[in-house]
Amino acid sequence: MSENNKKGRIVSGMRPTGRLHLGHYLGVLTNWVKLQNEFDCYFFVADWHALTTKFDCTENLKEDTRNVVLDWLAAGIDPEKSHIYIQSHVPQTAELHVYLSMITPQNWVERDPTLKDLAKMIRTEGENKPNVSYGLLGYPVLMAADIMTFNVDYVPVGIDQVAHIEIARDIARRFNNLYKTEFFNEAKPKLTQIPLLKGVDGQKMGKSFHNDIKISDSEEDTAKKVMKAITDRSRARKDDPGHPDKCEVAFSYWQAFADEEKIKQVQQECIAGKRGCADCKRELGALMNEKLRPIRERRKYYEEHPEIVDEIIKKGNEKAREEAEKVLQGVRKAMRMPDYR
Amino acid sequence: MSENNKKGRIVSGMRPTGRLHLGHYLGVLTNWVKLQNEFDCYFFVADWHALTTKFDCTENLKEDTRNVVLDWLAAGIDPEKSHIYIQSHVPQTAELHVYLSMITPQNWVERDPTLKDLAKMIRTEGENKPNVSYGLLGYPVLMAADIMTFNVDYVPVGIDQVAHIEIARDIARRFNNLYKTEFFNEAKPKLTQIPLLKGVDGQKMGKSFHNDIKISDSEEDTAKKVMKAITDRSRARKDDPGHPDKCEVAFSYWQAFADEEKIKQVQQECIAGKRGCADCKRELGALMNEKLRPIRERRKYYEEHPEIVDEIIKKGNEKAREEAEKVLQGVRKAMRMPDYR
Repeated sequence: MSENNKKGRIVSGMRPTGRLHLGHYLGVLTNWVKLQNEFDCYFFVADWHALTTKFDCTENLKEDTRNVVLDWLAAGIDPEKSHIYIQSHVPQTAELHVYLSMITPQNWVERDPTLKDLAKMIRTEGENKPNVSYGLLGYPVLMAADIMTFNVDYVPVGIDQVAHIEIARDIARRFNNLYKTEFFNEAKPKLTQIPLLKGVDGQKMGKSFHNDIKISDSEEDTAKKVMKAITDRSRARKDDPGHPDKCEVAFSYWQAFADEEKIKQVQQECIAGKRGCADCKRELGALMNEKLRPIRERRKYYEEHPEIVDEIIKKGNEKAREEAEKVLQGVRKAMRMPDYR
Repeated sequence: MSENNKKGRIVSGMRPTGRLHLGHYLGVLTNWVKLQNEFDCYFFVADWHALTTKFDCTENLKEDTRNVVLDWLAAGIDPEKSHIYIQSHVPQTAELHVYLSMITPQNWVERDPTLKDLAKMIRTEGENKPNVSYGLLGYPVLMAADIMTFNVDYVPVGIDQVAHIEIARDIARRFNNLYKTEFFNEAKPKLTQIPLLKGVDGQKMGKSFHNDIKISDSEEDTAKKVMKAITDRSRARKDDPGHPDKCEVAFSYWQAFADEEKIKQVQQECIAGKRGCADCKRELGALMNEKLRPIRERRKYYEEHPEIVDEIIKKGNEKAREEAEKVLQGVRKAMRMPDYR
C-alpha cells in the first residue's frame, strides 16, 4: 500500500536498551508489524532520550542502538513499509524542541508523573540527591517534539502511557492557539492491548532482572531459560493434578505462543495430571524456538549483512529528515521566524 | 589577516530588538568592529533567545532581525572579516543544546540570577504569575550552546555579564570530565569597558523608554532629539557660568563623540558662561550627525541593496553551519553517539 493510501501517520520510539526480549517482541513489535501495513510509520531509536538517565554511561550506546534495530528487522519491521531512523540524526527534532520549550510552561513539565520514576533511575551525586538534569526535566517536551516532528495522527501506546501523549496534545493545541493556526494535529493515542509477558521468575520481564529471554538468544539458551520458568508452586509430583491458573509463568508462555487448540490440550492434560512440569516446559521451549526461528533467521541474515542494515538506517534517517524539514518549514512560517534559507 | 592568523575565536549575539541606538553602537558595536581585526568573529542575531520572553509576539521578528543586521553592517561589521548569522539557521546549536541539557543539573539553571529579571519581562497569565516557560528556565543552557557551538576562546562581555559565561564554562568543564576529553575550551570572558550612554532624559538609553537616538535616525531627528538632552538643571541664563560635571546628558555626548581638544574647549566655554545650552546642543547635534554620516550612508547602501544583505547573511549562516558541524562531530564522537552519517 503506498504512503498516500495509508490511514494516517504514526511515530513510535524505543530507547536503545540493547538486545530486546520477548516482552518487547510481543508487547510492542508485533503491534508495529501490524501497524506498518495500515499506517505510514516512523520508528526511531531514542538515543537522546537514553541520555536523560544515562548521559554518564554511553559506552554501549552504539552497539545497543544497532541491536535494537536488528531486533526490529528480525521481528518483521519492513524497511519497504516503515521508516527506521535514529533520533539524533534528525536535527529538525532538536530545532522543534527549542521552539516547543519556549511555549511550554515550566509547571506543565514539572507535573509529569513519570519524572519521579525516571529520576530514580539515575545515579545519585553527593547528598544522595538524584541529579535531575535540565534535559530530564524536559523529557515530555522532547517527546512532544518527537511526535510533532512528523505531525503524526497517532501514537501507539499502552493504557498507562496515555498521559504522555496528553502533554504533547496540550503543547500542539497551545502552538495552534498562540500562532493562530491549525498547523499541528493533536496526535491521538492509538491504544493497544499490550500483553505483559512475565520474566521466567514471575516478575516483570526485564534485562536488569536477569529473567528475560532475548529475541537473539540461541535455541539452546531459550530452552534452558524456559526450563527455569515458574510453574504451579503447590504441585509436588508430576502426576498430581496441576492448576494452569496457578502456573505462574509457563502457562502464560503457552498462551502467548501456542494456538487455541494447543493451549486447551495443555490445560486439560495439566489438570488431569498427565503433563509433568518438566516435560511441559521442554515442549514449550521447543514450540517457542519454532515460532522464533524465522525471526532469528532474519536477524542472522541482517547480522551477516551489516551494509544492508547501514543502508536501511541511512535511508530512514534521510526520509525522516526530509519529512521533518517540511514540517519545520510550516512551524517557522507559523511562528514568523526570520527566513534566509 | 587570515582566519588562521587571528588570535582566537569569538562569538557574540544580540537579540533582535529592531533598530539599534547609539548605546548599542558605542557600547557593543564599536568593540565588535575592533575585535574583528584581531579575532575570528561569529556575530549572531539571537532569534531563539527572543522567544524566551516574546514567544507570543513574533509579528516583527523578521523586520527586527533585518534591522539589527543592517545596523551592524552600518557600524562597520565587515562580512569579509566576520561571520554574521541567524541563530535559528544553525541547527547544530539546537542539537548541542539537547546534549548540554542532559548533562546540566536542574539546579544550575535555577540558580541563574538573571532568570528573575527575564521572568519580569514576560506577560503574566492568570493569577498574575509570570508564565516562565521551560525554555526560559533553560536559557543559560542555550547560551552555553551558542558559545560551545563554535568552541570559542572568548566571549566579549561587560563586567555585569561575567556570571553568564561562568555557567557555560561550568558546562564545558562538566562535559570534558564526563566524557574524559579535553574537547571543549572553557571560553573566557573578554572584558570590555562598556561606556554607558544615557538617554536624552538622563535615564538608561532604551527603545522602550523613548529616550534613544537610533543609528538609523535622520539627521533632522537626531538634531531634534539632541536638543532635548538634559543639561545643567541649575543653570538659569545662557551667560551664567555652567557646570559640565552637572550637565546630565549633553556633556556626556560630547565626551562620547568629540576629540579631546574639542571636549576641553566645550568645557572651558561652558564654565566661562560663553556657551549657552541651546547653542551647545545645536553644535553637538551637528557633530554627532557628522560622525554618524558614514555609518548612515553605509546603512543606506545596504538598505538599497537588499540582495547583498541576503547574500551576506546566507554566506554567514553557511559558514556557521560548516564550522558548527565540525564541532558537533567532535561532540558526538566524545559522547559515543551512534553514527550513521
